[in-house]
Amino acid sequence: MPLVPTPQALPGISGLFAFRPETGVPMRALAQALLRGPSPLSPAERELIATFVSSNNSCRFCTRSHGAVARRLGDTDTVDAVLGGQAGAAGPKMQALLAIAEHVRGSVAPVPQALGDAARSAGADDLALHDAVLIAAAFSMFNRYVEGLGAETPPEGPAYDAMAERLASQGYLVQPKPGLPT
Amino acid sequence: MPLVPTPQALPGISGLFAFRPETGVPMRALAQALLRGPSPLSPAERELIATFVSSNNSCRFCTRSHGAVARRLGDTDTVDAVLGGQAGAAGPKMQALLAIAEHVRGSVAPVPQALGDAARSAGADDLALHDAVLIAAAFSMFNRYVEGLGAETPPEGPAYDAMAERLASQGYLVQPKPGLPT
Repeated sequence: MPLVPTPQALPGISGLFAFRPETGVPMRALAQALLRGPSPLSPAERELIATFVSSNNSCRFCTRSHGAVARRLGDTDTVDAVLGGQAGAAGPKMQALLAIAEHVRGSVAPVPQALGDAARSAGADDLALHDAVLIAAAFSMFNRYVEGLGAETPPEGPAYDAMAERLASQGYLVQPKPGLPT
Repeated sequence: MPLVPTPQALPGISGLFAFRPETGVPMRALAQALLRGPSPLSPAERELIATFVSSNNSCRFCTRSHGAVARRLGDTDTVDAVLGGQAGAAGPKMQALLAIAEHVRGSVAPVPQALGDAARSAGADDLALHDAVLIAAAFSMFNRYVEGLGAETPPEGPAYDAMAERLASQGYLVQPKPGLPT
């Protein structure tokens, strides 16, 4: 049961956004800019970083929801391989960016020069480095928000397929209606 | 030296926001809603939680900047005591909320029922609990963003006094001008 009262029909972070729309609106806007706005990284690549960070943080809701979006926008086998510990399956540039994301997730400390150099050598530019760092930092927030407040987490299954369809086609600015699939 | 090129005259997170305004705008909006918008917690109480989390995360820029704001809006002795490990100096309600914030900072896991009960017994309502959790989660992001990208961090001193004056009087939506105190 969540620590604060959220609408039963809105599980996960959508219920928290509905409880506190004053902060939900800029958090949705951040997700939209970071995961869908202009970037040298494709939405599929950015969703993969978000899923990887959420998985390593053991945030079930974010891993399932962003994992479903990453699979829909990208390649299921690659997502499964990365979550299974085979970051190399995503290619050298993404492998280097995932290493940077893992550093940021696990500590509050400068990204080591060697990790930055490796990503640049593999083709990542300043914006790609920035976005990888901020996705890892932002999901350090989203994951803590969802798990800390004990947001309702549906079991694996159709709920996440419906969510992925909505998030892949409409992005993050749309507030789902209670009673419909989130 | 930061991992990405930021304007020299804009240290700290302001330089990162200037480098990537697409994400800077919603991040400023989140800070404004979370630290200045309507809440059962005063801006001074919310800045104290932000400072406490940033200090425990060893983010020097955020500790110094939000610490300066917390001292300006609240009580210097209380801020110093809390940062020195004496959370009780902030009173029972804030002590309980700081314990919740520390839980959220340090782990991605539900706030234990006992911590929630203690905060409610000390007078915190649902919104206060929510806001304490989200401040801790949001500074888990801001701290990682600033330290991960190696943002320039001025030494303790007048830079933070000027910043605190601006943030206390104008809030977080105003983008400081390069060349002026941030």
